[in-house]
Amino acid sequence: MTTPQEDSQEQRSQKLAALPLREELRGQEPYGAPQLTVPAMLNVNETTYDVPAEVVEAITEQVRRAAVGLNRYPDREFTALREKLADYLSRESSLSSPLAAENMWAANGSNEIMQHIFQAFAGPGRSVLAFPPTYSMYPLYARGTYSDYIAGEREDDFTQSAESVARQIRAHRPHVVILCSPNNPTGTALGLDVVEAAYEAARDSDTMVVVDEAYGEFRQQGTPSALELLAGRERLIVSRTMSKAFALAGGRLGYLAAAPEVTDALRLVRLPYHLSAITQATAEAALDHSAALMANVERIRVQRDRIVAELGAMGLDPKPSDANFVFFGGLQDEKAAWKHLLDDGVLIRDVGIPQHLRVTAGTAEETTSFLDSLRRYVSGGSPRAAAHG
Amino acid sequence: MTTPQEDSQEQRSQKLAALPLREELRGQEPYGAPQLTVPAMLNVNETTYDVPAEVVEAITEQVRRAAVGLNRYPDREFTALREKLADYLSRESSLSSPLAAENMWAANGSNEIMQHIFQAFAGPGRSVLAFPPTYSMYPLYARGTYSDYIAGEREDDFTQSAESVARQIRAHRPHVVILCSPNNPTGTALGLDVVEAAYEAARDSDTMVVVDEAYGEFRQQGTPSALELLAGRERLIVSRTMSKAFALAGGRLGYLAAAPEVTDALRLVRLPYHLSAITQATAEAALDHSAALMANVERIRVQRDRIVAELGAMGLDPKPSDANFVFFGGLQDEKAAWKHLLDDGVLIRDVGIPQHLRVTAGTAEETTSFLDSLRRYVSGGSPRAAAHG
Repeated sequence: MTTPQEDSQEQRSQKLAALPLREELRGQEPYGAPQLTVPAMLNVNETTYDVPAEVVEAITEQVRRAAVGLNRYPDREFTALREKLADYLSRESSLSSPLAAENMWAANGSNEIMQHIFQAFAGPGRSVLAFPPTYSMYPLYARGTYSDYIAGEREDDFTQSAESVARQIRAHRPHVVILCSPNNPTGTALGLDVVEAAYEAARDSDTMVVVDEAYGEFRQQGTPSALELLAGRERLIVSRTMSKAFALAGGRLGYLAAAPEVTDALRLVRLPYHLSAITQATAEAALDHSAALMANVERIRVQRDRIVAELGAMGLDPKPSDANFVFFGGLQDEKAAWKHLLDDGVLIRDVGIPQHLRVTAGTAEETTSFLDSLRRYVSGGSPRAAAHG
Repeated sequence: MTTPQEDSQEQRSQKLAALPLREELRGQEPYGAPQLTVPAMLNVNETTYDVPAEVVEAITEQVRRAAVGLNRYPDREFTALREKLADYLSRESSLSSPLAAENMWAANGSNEIMQHIFQAFAGPGRSVLAFPPTYSMYPLYARGTYSDYIAGEREDDFTQSAESVARQIRAHRPHVVILCSPNNPTGTALGLDVVEAAYEAARDSDTMVVVDEAYGEFRQQGTPSALELLAGRERLIVSRTMSKAFALAGGRLGYLAAAPEVTDALRLVRLPYHLSAITQATAEAALDHSAALMANVERIRVQRDRIVAELGAMGLDPKPSDANFVFFGGLQDEKAAWKHLLDDGVLIRDVGIPQHLRVTAGTAEETTSFLDSLRRYVSGGSPRAAAHG
């Protein structure tokens, strides 16, 4: 074989360029946030609390039972998991018309959920509309499914009005529109009026409407979920993930709720047996212990609100947050601030928007480390801040 | 919500047709072999031996360790797993130039492995050549990635010659060619001369050559793996799976070996964090216990050779097999034979080739049940066989 350890990065790139790769992939870099190990890792919106011991035990026991039968293909329909997801969502959003297994679909992370949606309803010669700044994977799902990606517009304060969203859908007539609520990276949830207006506009152009509620469980008290709008809207899809509120980023379980015929459509594009028996077992065990996991969600919301309050007190500009992170502006040099925090062992996210940064709400201790470090930076009170500022 | 339990299949189909689904998906059915529960399930080439207790224990303990950190995203590069896969393959095929982690790629089943290959090297406006009768998923990977699928030709006895394969590659100039060895459903492995000839022809047309060795571990003594050809052939990909020899169909772990720049290409199309921490833990534990699992491979090869011998003695026409299944002809009415076996509690596979069926080599007891039932059918000695024959 070639001896890869002897190749420089440049040599690897040259060898890659010599392969018959698709044109649109040439010169691209793999997606991924830097994976650094520091005391406070607040950059990718994980739950930073340890997985509760009772959840570790439940996952282990459920996996032990599944492992005995791993020689057989898994349940292609993952029916038990879909039932538990339907029960959970119906309770979580206090739905007056409960969801059933037939309304549910799941995949290896919401990445794969979105890929399934794009494969079935977008793809070559079709288009997807999203509204940057928003989740940075959306254009990559489009690229991976050869769909056209249309970048819509937001207000200057990153919010979206019903009128603006409806107008842009009517103008672009996309095959799929994605509303991210609460929006990543800006943190604010949409009112149901925006989703309703989007759906009405979408009806005229045969557009599927996806509301990405990856951070749904962290929304402010009284903020409704788009799940409430599903009844009677067969072109509406609400996606969720177990990566955030369920502290299961490593378990890779995304899911969605929609009309049963939408799941029939996704069944046509999924790779058979896409969810392993081990993944099904892990997710089912976590769902059985949602109470323990939701207790951490409450703790995270407290820290999130604390961050918003204290950043405001520092004279910065935090946006209202329905998520487990806070997006804030008011920095003269966000790169210097980011570096100052990292030097203090606090890793947060530079999402590429001038004067702004995004921080995950972690434990009380991590939040204190973040706030103390940033306060020193803002006040110029530390030697480092002085050097940067 | 709609109340799906009240919808008939026809109503569901009508509702699906009302969605803005892509045109090529309209009227399609989801892929999947029937999942029936009978005493001898020999239809999908699973390992029918139970997972050894030591492997169940190892998986459980490795998952327990992984579960503690599930709140964090998994290792996007799955480096530990790739190292173990490289070590395993280098030993399994006694490679004179051992593989390194940089040569390895893995995904959720070989389904996703093939999807990654097609996304990077095929896709819209590009084509894939395979040689039916072969694995029935290949055209579906093409559909899922909007690639053109070209059905090549085999000899009348389902074999492939170096000359024929090279000629067809030169004629079609596909972007990807798939050689399935041993071929599913016909069971026979290709000589390295065929792979070498394919590679030479492929060089002239910028074609990637994929040798699908899903059943590689079951090959006859002395039959080489295409892994031996990897050195110096940067457009050759050899894919494997843990579903068969590792008895891990439920664990969904496919993988491949290739030049490092090929894995660089696949990194551009994979969804980030596509392999969960739980999947990585499960596969690593199974690789640590490959000796126990390979003992079952030996037992299965014995039953496989027994099936070939006994079917021949019955006057049927079994093909030489390098796999954990046997493809056999000589049946006047393969559908009647299949039904006769099912009535006896033995489920095998009708792959849609007249006069032929495919049976998985199971345990000694399952093999006996299959052979006894088929012998009764062939001899016309049972009332059922008489009725059908």
